[in-house]
Amino acid sequence: MRKYTITVNQKNRETQHLSATHGQNLLRVLADAGLSLPSPCGGKGLCGKCKVKVVSSAQTGASQCVTEESFLDEQQIKAGYRLACQVTVTQDLMVDLSSLQPGAAQIMVAGEHEVPLHPLIRKEVLSLPKPSPDLPVSDVERVETALGLPGSIPPALFTQLSSLLRKGDRTLSAVLAGDEVLSIEEKGQPEIYGMAVDLGTTTIVGYLIELVTGKLIDTYAMLNPQKNYGADVISRVNYTIENEDGLATLTALVRNGINEMIRYFCRKNPGMARRIFDLTLVGNTIMIHLFAGLDVKNMAVSPYTPVVARSFQLNPSQTGIEMHPNGKIRILPMIAGFVGADSVAAILACGMGKKTELSLLIDIGTNGEIAIGNSERILTCSTAAGPAFEGANLSHGMGGIEGAINRIWVDQDLEYSTIGNKPPKGICGSAVIDLVAEMLRVGLLEPSGRMKSPAEIEDEEIPSLLKKRLHEVEGQPALFITGKSHGAPEDIYFTQKDVREVQLAKAAIAAGTRILLQEMGVTVEQISHLYLAGGFGNYIDYDSAIKIGLLPKALRKKIVPIGNGAGVGAKMALLSQEYYALAERIQKQTEYLELSTRTDFQDLFLDALELSFQ
Amino acid sequence: MRKYTITVNQKNRETQHLSATHGQNLLRVLADAGLSLPSPCGGKGLCGKCKVKVVSSAQTGASQCVTEESFLDEQQIKAGYRLACQVTVTQDLMVDLSSLQPGAAQIMVAGEHEVPLHPLIRKEVLSLPKPSPDLPVSDVERVETALGLPGSIPPALFTQLSSLLRKGDRTLSAVLAGDEVLSIEEKGQPEIYGMAVDLGTTTIVGYLIELVTGKLIDTYAMLNPQKNYGADVISRVNYTIENEDGLATLTALVRNGINEMIRYFCRKNPGMARRIFDLTLVGNTIMIHLFAGLDVKNMAVSPYTPVVARSFQLNPSQTGIEMHPNGKIRILPMIAGFVGADSVAAILACGMGKKTELSLLIDIGTNGEIAIGNSERILTCSTAAGPAFEGANLSHGMGGIEGAINRIWVDQDLEYSTIGNKPPKGICGSAVIDLVAEMLRVGLLEPSGRMKSPAEIEDEEIPSLLKKRLHEVEGQPALFITGKSHGAPEDIYFTQKDVREVQLAKAAIAAGTRILLQEMGVTVEQISHLYLAGGFGNYIDYDSAIKIGLLPKALRKKIVPIGNGAGVGAKMALLSQEYYALAERIQKQTEYLELSTRTDFQDLFLDALELSFQ
Repeated sequence: MRKYTITVNQKNRETQHLSATHGQNLLRVLADAGLSLPSPCGGKGLCGKCKVKVVSSAQTGASQCVTEESFLDEQQIKAGYRLACQVTVTQDLMVDLSSLQPGAAQIMVAGEHEVPLHPLIRKEVLSLPKPSPDLPVSDVERVETALGLPGSIPPALFTQLSSLLRKGDRTLSAVLAGDEVLSIEEKGQPEIYGMAVDLGTTTIVGYLIELVTGKLIDTYAMLNPQKNYGADVISRVNYTIENEDGLATLTALVRNGINEMIRYFCRKNPGMARRIFDLTLVGNTIMIHLFAGLDVKNMAVSPYTPVVARSFQLNPSQTGIEMHPNGKIRILPMIAGFVGADSVAAILACGMGKKTELSLLIDIGTNGEIAIGNSERILTCSTAAGPAFEGANLSHGMGGIEGAINRIWVDQDLEYSTIGNKPPKGICGSAVIDLVAEMLRVGLLEPSGRMKSPAEIEDEEIPSLLKKRLHEVEGQPALFITGKSHGAPEDIYFTQKDVREVQLAKAAIAAGTRILLQEMGVTVEQISHLYLAGGFGNYIDYDSAIKIGLLPKALRKKIVPIGNGAGVGAKMALLSQEYYALAERIQKQTEYLELSTRTDFQDLFLDALELSFQ
Repeated sequence: MRKYTITVNQKNRETQHLSATHGQNLLRVLADAGLSLPSPCGGKGLCGKCKVKVVSSAQTGASQCVTEESFLDEQQIKAGYRLACQVTVTQDLMVDLSSLQPGAAQIMVAGEHEVPLHPLIRKEVLSLPKPSPDLPVSDVERVETALGLPGSIPPALFTQLSSLLRKGDRTLSAVLAGDEVLSIEEKGQPEIYGMAVDLGTTTIVGYLIELVTGKLIDTYAMLNPQKNYGADVISRVNYTIENEDGLATLTALVRNGINEMIRYFCRKNPGMARRIFDLTLVGNTIMIHLFAGLDVKNMAVSPYTPVVARSFQLNPSQTGIEMHPNGKIRILPMIAGFVGADSVAAILACGMGKKTELSLLIDIGTNGEIAIGNSERILTCSTAAGPAFEGANLSHGMGGIEGAINRIWVDQDLEYSTIGNKPPKGICGSAVIDLVAEMLRVGLLEPSGRMKSPAEIEDEEIPSLLKKRLHEVEGQPALFITGKSHGAPEDIYFTQKDVREVQLAKAAIAAGTRILLQEMGVTVEQISHLYLAGGFGNYIDYDSAIKIGLLPKALRKKIVPIGNGAGVGAKMALLSQEYYALAERIQKQTEYLELSTRTDFQDLFLDALELSFQ
């Protein structure tokens, strides 16, 4: 296994030299050496707190990924700052921890766009005219006139407003959502905050942002408290069908989760919760329904009808969310039962809806959501890729956690790296793609997906060390990555059946991509950017993905990983009314293709089973 | 006392001949003879249920009063139908009870206007397209598309809507307020209702109207349950100042009163309460504040600032009103602390805001509210008239209830009639005006308001029977209307001090009228209509009122009594969005004159103490 040296400089401390293997994560290398950087998001690239200055030159993937750009300003980028959690070690590195500036000014950059700060919620200072007996005017109209907004104050604020006026102070401040007053207060009240939340099936991530400055105050990532009721959305839907109070249970869990997040954000000052006036929420369609307490059972059967897809607002009192009682909970629009507000947010984040050139967006999970389009027209679909790229349903697959084999390459023999440089426990998605690509390259695998048998390869030009790894397990060929024969306690291998799983997943994504191109009437060459959302975009080897035909070769130079596009999009909608409106426009102009009923999709799918891009 | 004969014809019964005295109320004459007509409003002209056909010709006041026109259609009017409670007996009458048509079709006529039926609340029947897998659309958007109103369904209805769709019925009905959906229901749901309520200090009157047809279903009048906490608004304001929970107490009382009214309306079918979708509310500014739970204490001190004057809406859940939970409680706009939504409604009812000619509107109570204007401009003021015209603060004054002397005239002697033809207990407002007018006419009283002493009139040409009624009581002249000398158990007389009370009240109204004319820059001759609101307009003798200078002589032929203008205006706003909008426009274009700070008003007031119109 290739080894590299990480040289670490710190203020007032001796330079340290750490050892790392190929493919290790820099944050973990530092943590293992006792140099723990703050990482409340758990190394997901969500909190921006693990900044380091990387002195040596070009990294794998050359530049910072978009995830990082959200947390680094131009100067920092030029100076070599990175988020340690986003850095994969592929060479010797020199890291400087001495010049970190915690809490430095941040410019919110999302996708390729700077977001102009124009949140729904704003604060205005009012100077009231003195009341006069000659021009009698009611308390409410006096304030509304000063605001220039007749009819803007809801009756629930009348009493509070009247008491404030009686104190005689003629300077007040108002918190408004558009033209509606949410609070009338004495001047000098504290900051106003908003939250952007991405309700994932597995993880809920929230961002606390001060709305006057747009400054990101805090980030929190937590496991979705519904996880004990099913790992995926379909099992949660089933839970609501099988249990009379199932929907209420799941709704309460996710709402409590958000309240837990608010309590975390306000841990030093619980009163701050009442200064949160806006919560923009994204998530897949089923998670949004579960949050809103809406029936999900129709999304389990064709035609997978959601109760609602357009954007809508809920009140804190309707949901029990412990923010300002007059605050807004704004749910971004969804496209269909399996293309949710998280996809709309990712489309927002990548800028597809604003460009004249065509972009392609791929978000790969158990469902692969794919979108193609520009400011004129967007097409989207969801394909049941299955969990092979998440490392599930394979002989020795696993998620991308410690001990997972995350990179595989073949030189004279098969080599690999593991997450955390721990003894290997299984293979995660990025290594699965590497492995299939390498098997194709060296000739262990035919493009049809047929693995050769040990007998067939005897005379072929394949490194002999590799040949020794091919055996038969239960009557089918299996390539041993490690195992007892290599001194490991457990065998880890990859079988013909595993290849078939990868083929199905790959074919679903590739055929989905193909049908969108076809429906749009364009060729792959006409695409200007291929945006990859999620961890997938950050962790896979693009060349391997292209080799197996998962991504189009023509777009190799056009790949842009956008990190947690859903979270970025939610922040953009929180910070800018224009982006919120754009999300609504995206929903209206997006056409959803239901693939399950299309025979042309079946044909494309069968073609795409071939392990090369069509 | 003049006596008349009332001849009553009824189907299948012998003709009856009843005896009545001058000034008696026809409803009471009939009731005393065992011919009770339905009168749930208590004879206030509010329910329209005591219809009779009066065969003999012209009544005092010649035509039906406007109150009656609300309940009678053109044919009925031509045929001589009247509301018995609105008929004062001043001649022999022939009454026909045989051809009554209970529940006859009604056209809502208010003021001088027919109200075009265009309520805020409407019902629509929807035919939904079949859901299709090729065109997947959410439940909510499917219904919104059928309605042609994207974004019109609030999240609180999502679940209900989704369940309805699952039943498979593709014809639904929706109840809407403008572009907002209040309810989605199976077709064939029952009627939709609205209520118009006039929150008076003494009496609360409500009207239940079916909104699709505009038909008046029921009327209910009740004493304001707050009456034990003060007879007038100022004592109720004081109650809220002196008691910590005073405001909450008064608010709960009036809200419970409205719920009592709803229970009365729905006594046969309690489920009907949830079919009430709209409640338009008028009342004086303090009553509106007490209903809304808003602080009233600032209206007790100059500059009498209300918390709110513009129109506003409350939710049933904010108020505990037991109507449809998504229904609207709409409060009509107010002008100032002492010119309330009841005045705006009366302005609406009399049509002042729609005419090019100038109108004058006078509503006399403890405060006299006066308005002058047309569609261009309206001026209004409130004058502290005091309660003399309500029969209070006088030696033997009383309200207009049974046993009150309600008419006084002098021929050879002073004569009078009483309400209900009962033994006299005191003098009510209409008789007070008659008495002062007659005293002036015969020379017992100087225009300055000085009563002559018994000695002074000895040689004057005054009927000798009248001369005998003038005595001295506690050193001041007093005219005895009845008493021990006339065989009555108690003396009833009217003193110099009582004349002064009438002068103050008269001067307040007359000076208020004068200052409005002056401020508008017009003479009284330029006024096209003088509208008199309230019972006052129906019961006083206009000639007496002109004689004492309360009303301008030049407007004698232009007087139009409008009955309960506040209630009529509330109904108009309920039935027609255009009238609701007009009420809001009236508020904006109405200038309020605060008289208490004007020295020119003081001068006009002193001039107007003279008992003749200036």
